Parts: sequence; structure tokens; C-alpha cells
Amino acid sequence: MKPLVSSFQITLSKPSPSDKTADYDRLIMAISKNLDKPLPVFIDLKSLQILPIYLRKKNFSIKLAIAYTGTDLRILDLLEVYNDSDKVYGVAIDIGTTNVVGSLFETDKSYQKLAYCELENPQILLGLDVLTRVQHAILGKSVELNQLILKGINELIKTLCRTANIEPSKIYMAVFAGNTIMSHFLLNLSVENIPIEPYIPVCNRFQWMKAKDLGIDIHPNGIVYVFPNAGSYVGGDIIAGILSTGLYKEELPSLLIDVGTNAEIVFGCKEWILVGAGAAGPALESGISDIGMRAVEGAIYSIEIDNHHGVKFKTIGSKPPKGICGSGMIELISEMFKAGIIDNQGKFRNFSEKVIDINGKKGFLIYDTKEKTLIITNTDIENFLRSKAAMFTSLYVIVKSVGLTFKDIDKVYISGAFGKGIDAQKAIQIGMIPNIEKNKFIPLENSSLRGAEMLLMNRDLLEDIEKICNLITYKEMNTESEFMKEFPGALFIPHTNPSILNT
Amino acid sequence: MKPLVSSFQITLSKPSPSDKTADYDRLIMAISKNLDKPLPVFIDLKSLQILPIYLRKKNFSIKLAIAYTGTDLRILDLLEVYNDSDKVYGVAIDIGTTNVVGSLFETDKSYQKLAYCELENPQILLGLDVLTRVQHAILGKSVELNQLILKGINELIKTLCRTANIEPSKIYMAVFAGNTIMSHFLLNLSVENIPIEPYIPVCNRFQWMKAKDLGIDIHPNGIVYVFPNAGSYVGGDIIAGILSTGLYKEELPSLLIDVGTNAEIVFGCKEWILVGAGAAGPALESGISDIGMRAVEGAIYSIEIDNHHGVKFKTIGSKPPKGICGSGMIELISEMFKAGIIDNQGKFRNFSEKVIDINGKKGFLIYDTKEKTLIITNTDIENFLRSKAAMFTSLYVIVKSVGLTFKDIDKVYISGAFGKGIDAQKAIQIGMIPNIEKNKFIPLENSSLRGAEMLLMNRDLLEDIEKICNLITYKEMNTESEFMKEFPGALFIPHTNPSILNT
Repeated sequence: MKPLVSSFQITLSKPSPSDKTADYDRLIMAISKNLDKPLPVFIDLKSLQILPIYLRKKNFSIKLAIAYTGTDLRILDLLEVYNDSDKVYGVAIDIGTTNVVGSLFETDKSYQKLAYCELENPQILLGLDVLTRVQHAILGKSVELNQLILKGINELIKTLCRTANIEPSKIYMAVFAGNTIMSHFLLNLSVENIPIEPYIPVCNRFQWMKAKDLGIDIHPNGIVYVFPNAGSYVGGDIIAGILSTGLYKEELPSLLIDVGTNAEIVFGCKEWILVGAGAAGPALESGISDIGMRAVEGAIYSIEIDNHHGVKFKTIGSKPPKGICGSGMIELISEMFKAGIIDNQGKFRNFSEKVIDINGKKGFLIYDTKEKTLIITNTDIENFLRSKAAMFTSLYVIVKSVGLTFKDIDKVYISGAFGKGIDAQKAIQIGMIPNIEKNKFIPLENSSLRGAEMLLMNRDLLEDIEKICNLITYKEMNTESEFMKEFPGALFIPHTNPSILNT
Repeated sequence: MKPLVSSFQITLSKPSPSDKTADYDRLIMAISKNLDKPLPVFIDLKSLQILPIYLRKKNFSIKLAIAYTGTDLRILDLLEVYNDSDKVYGVAIDIGTTNVVGSLFETDKSYQKLAYCELENPQILLGLDVLTRVQHAILGKSVELNQLILKGINELIKTLCRTANIEPSKIYMAVFAGNTIMSHFLLNLSVENIPIEPYIPVCNRFQWMKAKDLGIDIHPNGIVYVFPNAGSYVGGDIIAGILSTGLYKEELPSLLIDVGTNAEIVFGCKEWILVGAGAAGPALESGISDIGMRAVEGAIYSIEIDNHHGVKFKTIGSKPPKGICGSGMIELISEMFKAGIIDNQGKFRNFSEKVIDINGKKGFLIYDTKEKTLIITNTDIENFLRSKAAMFTSLYVIVKSVGLTFKDIDKVYISGAFGKGIDAQKAIQIGMIPNIEKNKFIPLENSSLRGAEMLLMNRDLLEDIEKICNLITYKEMNTESEFMKEFPGALFIPHTNPSILNT
């Protein structure tokens, strides 16, 4: 294990009349002997000021908290040598538009994940979607948005620490992955130029920063790494996701489909990486319909409808149903189509007592008790079909754009809400994803967080991130004529030309 | 000119649909194109936060304050482009035990020295000499000593700015040269282990630091460079002095004699550098006798005594005499010896009405008016002779130690109080320095400040400093048996064995 931050135990030779090396120079020389390649070593003034007393108190047998940035080493703290509770920890955090999720690792000896936590992004106060928040920022609320995300992050860190029973001041490294807007909010950078042509972020490659300068409550010398963006529409979350799959090291091209609040498609191998986005929109999370919800307790994640329109479903935690999550929605559409409730355009065929009228719209009654009624309406279905059409068309366009076919795809990584327990076959049946062999699908819980965790525990991946950034080409779907041409056919279930799913 | 800090004017290509590079990445790429070798570029968070607005306000034609540390570039400020008064300045400061002296340079375009200032080191409150201050530090006054030197430095900077009519916030770089103790006081580092065997400083090589972190009142992003030490007894002032002479680049060996509050001897060439110290003690400044004083207005700097003991002298500024400075003292001893007032052991020969008795000691009456009486006593002379003996013996031992003779010396740089208008011939006559040809002597005002100024204006010298540090060997005179053997003979005027002056 080569974590970004860890403890470093070392015994220095003692000063003597024949070795009058200064304290700090002595320390650096001893550290440098333990390095594979020479790197500059830095220390903060405060630690330097207490170094001579510390060295002598510990009889020159010492333990440091050290961060490795790839280009230098930073001594972050002088630790208690024989106090085993004086350990070094790090956090990996995925800043999603909807959720902030993170995990806490002991990066000292055991390298164990000690806690995981997920909470709502407090910026939701200023808008569910990213663009609304950007508007707020432009209209003068950028500081507030920065403060809200910091509040969320610090709350998350506190919760992680409570779970693991450690002090936040024992965390020396925080790794963040977020989309470009979220990373900008984190650093309180202007997002003003991101939504307007030619979509320019302030920063793609972020420097290592002091947690204190950002307002993140870990050790005062703690360091922050923010995953780089590859432009306004390819954020650090995607880069972290790509890192987690390892597709950038493979001969054969693989797909990564990441569906969070937005859907992103990555297609690539060790020679090239295409990222397509901007078309799918809020696909499968709560945003899409009145009954949509995140994959939490009470969410319907699997559903069966028999020919008499009898409905059987499973909920997360086997709790009474509260709504339907992404994977459930895919199955619902697939089952409704199979049972003849909707036609291939998603329109109700109207021959069931479960197909009812609400406020002038048709809807299918999924569940109806005194406590809860769940109805999927025509509008919900249309929204869903637009998302599924965008998804398929994006995949089609991106794969075709490099002269390949779906058959050439080696693996399909599915991440995000979409990834939790999705039945790929059902998604194929409705034409959302192409007809790819079952064993090629690899579900990932949260590829962005996973990538951040991997980097936290392996600093060698800094080079991989550099490699990924250099490989990425962004493909904007909204301006792609091929996309516009193929999109209408994909609005059908499964497609006006079903054979396209196999090509 | 390649100053450590300067302005950098550059026009960036503008973002376009075909060039969506992020603002900061765009800036870095443009800067990198102008560099000889690739260097990492850093910016502070606050500048990054205002960068997008700044770039667009200036239509992508911008002017930055940039520091060059040798291993990276640091963007310190975003400047007004067309406001010619928005320039970049730097200061070079020599922190002496007795005086803090500094100069202010415009490092932007004209590279001119705009101001010079000299003031007393406020630490004098806690002791005239370094060791007394170290004792104070050990007894709990280290913060006070740090605050005192900062007060002096900030006062000096304010005065420099007042002279040049600029704001301190326009200074982006401060270069400091001081002895090891002074540099430690500046950084508030512990001096506790410096005076006790084996004499270990906290730090020999100092990192680049933020002025703000040290409490130095220049631009908040301003950077501080502190000349490295080569051990407890070879401070940054010596390194800077060596830098100023260029002797480390020469084939033939040269001497650098630096007499401030302490006397230091450097002997070296491009292959090796010996530094000897620890013996001469407070040699020629005010410390040595009751009538001794610094080379300021009213100090006798030149003196003649005729055979009838008639005294003629010159004072700095032609003011009434207040005391006698280093060069005056050398001439006084030389003249008293020539006129037969003292013998070759410095004892009064007692046949003049000007040789008087005060408090049981003999003394020579130099000047006697109602306002001021100047008498040099036997004690003064003994102290002086000890210093001159230490000086000569150190030179002798150091030159002999590498198997060379005084004849092999190419140049003799004389710096410090000693350097101001010293008559080398008189110093030779009393056996203080060896008999070296007149044209080999090069007086330097303040070699330490000069070295700091040179670095401020030429960052390539960072490599030279590294080279100097690697060449230096420290020779402790107090423990040298050769020194002890030769010292007694040198107490005589000029020497018990005058031919030694030529060897």
C-alpha cells in the first residue's frame, strides 16, 4: 500500500562532534535515504519550530505524518511514537449534485476502511440541479454555495469520525471527486463562464491545497486533492470513475455508464477515451417522475407484471414502497410493455382497470393502499423514454464514431443509481442499452468514490490520472448531427429498428 | 537581469469553441512557453478565485507578479496592466547582530536600487552580543527576540518604502542574510542547541516561506528567502559574502575577511572553501574598548601621531570626535607604536605628558576638550592586540592548513566595519594581516548585504549558493593546536617573528 498520506517511523543518527548536521537537514537526509527517487521535502514553520525539542524528547526515534504529492513530500505533523492511537487517517469524498458520500481510511498501518457515510448535498437548498445553482452563483450566491458544500463536507467528515471514533484532526488528507461545477463550488471558484459558450472553467488541474485554506475541518496542515476535470462537462467524478475501472490500461475498449443526477458515458481503452454527455439529462434518479426516488429503503428496485396486470415488486429493505428507483423504473417500463399495458411508443393501450385517469392524464396504478398510492403517468413514461433514447443514442453515436460496433466492447461498467442491482437484460429489452452479452456487464456502486478511495490508498495512481486526462476527448452529443438523426428511433420500445441494438 | 521576483506581461489566446482550455490551465501553458525549462507553476487560492474576472477585464492581456524559486514559479499577484505605478519590488536585508541594513530594488523594469537604510538591531535591548541573546532565548525570551528582530525588519522596510515612495504591499520578495543565530531568531527557531556541543542548529537550508507566516510586512503573498547556513558558526551572512566576491568561481585562492560584531575569515577558490571563526571575537567595532564606536558620524577613522606625540585625526562627516572606529583603532595602535608611545607588547613606555594615569591604569590622551575626552587605556590596547593576534593567527593557520603561503593568495576582500576605508598598510605594519601586495586588497562595504542584493537580482545565483554550501569546510580555531601555538607570538607588534608576515 502506498497511500497519499501515512505515518513514517524513523530513527535518526544522533548529532555528535563528527556529525554536526542541523536537525531539519538531518531529518531530510534520513527521509531521503528511504525514497526510491529524490524528492524535495517540505515542513511547515510551526513543526520546524518544535522539531528540536521533539527530536530530543523522542531520543531521535520519531514518527511523522507525511503526504506524498508525487512531486514532493510534506511533513504534516510530528506524532507520538509509542502511542498507537496517534495514527494517520484520510478521507475520500464524492461530491455529487444530489449526495455527498465519503469514506474514512486508516492510512497508517491497517489501511482499513473504517467508515462510510452518505448525506444530501446541502446546496439542494439552492436548487435540485446544477444549472439552477450556477444561476444562483452568478446572481451573487457563490459564497453561500461554497459555504453550503463545505457544511455538507464537514458534517460528513464529522459523521465519519464519530463512526470510527477518531478526531477529525487525525485526518491529514482529503481526496475529492466531483463534477466540474461541484469542484468549483468547493474552491469557491467562479462558475460564471461554464454555462456559456465556449464553456470555460477556471481550472481543470487543481493544485494540492491546504484544507485550512479551503475551510475543511481536518488537521490544520491537512492537504486536499481535487480530481482534475477534463473540461466543463467532464468532471473529476468521471476521471475518478475511469480510474476505478482501469479501462485506460486495457487493449480492448470498454464502456462506463455512470448515471447519477446526470448520465455520462465513457468509451475507451489505453489508446483513447471518449466521454459523451450533455444529452441524457437527469435519467433515472428522483428527478424523472413524481414517483421516482433514490435507491434507498422503501424504493421499488424490481418489479414483475403478469398478463392480467397483477403487480409483484421488491423494495429495498423489504419496506413498504415509497417510490421507484432507477433499476425499478427500467423493469417497470419493460414489464408494462411485455404485458401490453403500453405500446412501443410508451402510450397506454387502455384495456385494464389499473389504467386510470388522473387530472386528465392516463396512469398505471402500481400500488394502492390507504397509506400510499403509486401511479406512473404518461408524462413519467415520456420522460423516461427520452432519457433511455438519449442513453442508447449516445452509446450508439460514441461507439460508431471510432468505427467500432457494440460487438467490439469488452466490458460494460455500470455505475451510479443505475448500477445498484440493475438487470441489464431488462434494460436491453427496452432498448436502453445495446444487446451485449450478459457476462460483459460489471456493476459498480459508485465509481467516482471508488476512484477517490483508490487514489487515497495508492499514490502511484496520480500518474494514471495524468494519463487519463491526456487520453480524454469530450464528445458533445447535443451538437452532434448523428445524435439528432438517431434519437427519434430510440424513443420507441425497444427501437424502430431493433436490429440496431446488435450492431 | 533575472531577479527572483518580477512582473511578467503576457497576452493569452482567448477561449473559443476550438480552444476550451480552462482559464488557469491556459495561463500556465502560456507562461510555460516562455520558460527555458519546464517548471511547475503555483498560484494562491485567492488569486485563482479572481482570475476569471481579471482575465476578461484585461481582455486576456495581463501582468503578473511572479517569483522564481529555482524549482518552481509562483504567481503572487495579478497586476494592473497599464498602470505603470503597479510595479514589483524586492528587498535585500542583512541581519547583523548590531545592525539591520537593507536595500530596496525595483525588480520590474529598471532594476534600480531605490533606497538603502541601516538601523540598530532592536534585539540590542536583550544584549549587545549574540551569546547573551541566546541565553535570553533559552531562559524563555525567544518569542520576544523574534518579535524584536521582526520589529526592526518591518521598521527598516517601512523606511525603505518611505524613501522610495512606494507601498510595502508592492514588495513581493525579501532576501535575508544573517548569521545562524539571527536567521533562527527570524524564524523563531530554537537556538537552544547551538551554543552547546556539538552545536546543532535547527536548520541549515531554509525553505522558501511566506512573508505573512513569518510576520514580515510586505505583500501578503510575498515570499522570503533566507540564506542557508553551513553550520552553527558559518551563517548565511558568510555565504552571502562569499557569493558577493565570486571567489568560489576562481582558480586561485582568495581571502575574505569580514569583520562585523564578530570576525570571520574565508579562504577558498572553486575547489574548496575554508571558513575559520570563533577566535577573533568582537574585534574592531564598539565592543572592544570604551572609546570604540561604529563607523558613523563623529568616529575617528584616520589618525596621525608625530614624534612629539602631537595628534591629528579625521572624523566621519568631519564632526567633533565621539569615539574611534575600527580603521581608526588600527591606525592609532600603529601610530602609537611608530611614535614610541607603546612598545612591541603594547605597553606604555611612559615618557610623555599625554600618557596619563586613570583609575590606576595608564592611558594615552587622544583628545581632550571640555565636551569630550578620549583616552585609550592599556586594557583597550590589550584587548585590541588579542583581536589582532587572533586575526593574524587565524589567517596564518587557515592558509597553512591547505599547504599554501600568503604569497599564493590572489585577492584579499575586506568587508564589514573593517572594510570601510581601512588602510591595509597600517594593518600590515602592526601584524594584523599578512604582508600582501597592496593591489590585491579589495575593500567591500557590506559583503553580506551585497550578496543578498545580487541574489535578489539574479536567480541563477541560487545554484551558486548551493555550490558554495557544498564547498565549505568549517575550521574551528579555538580547538586548533596550531592556533594555540602561533597565537602568543602574534600578540606582539608586529610579531615576535616578523618574517612570518611574509610567508
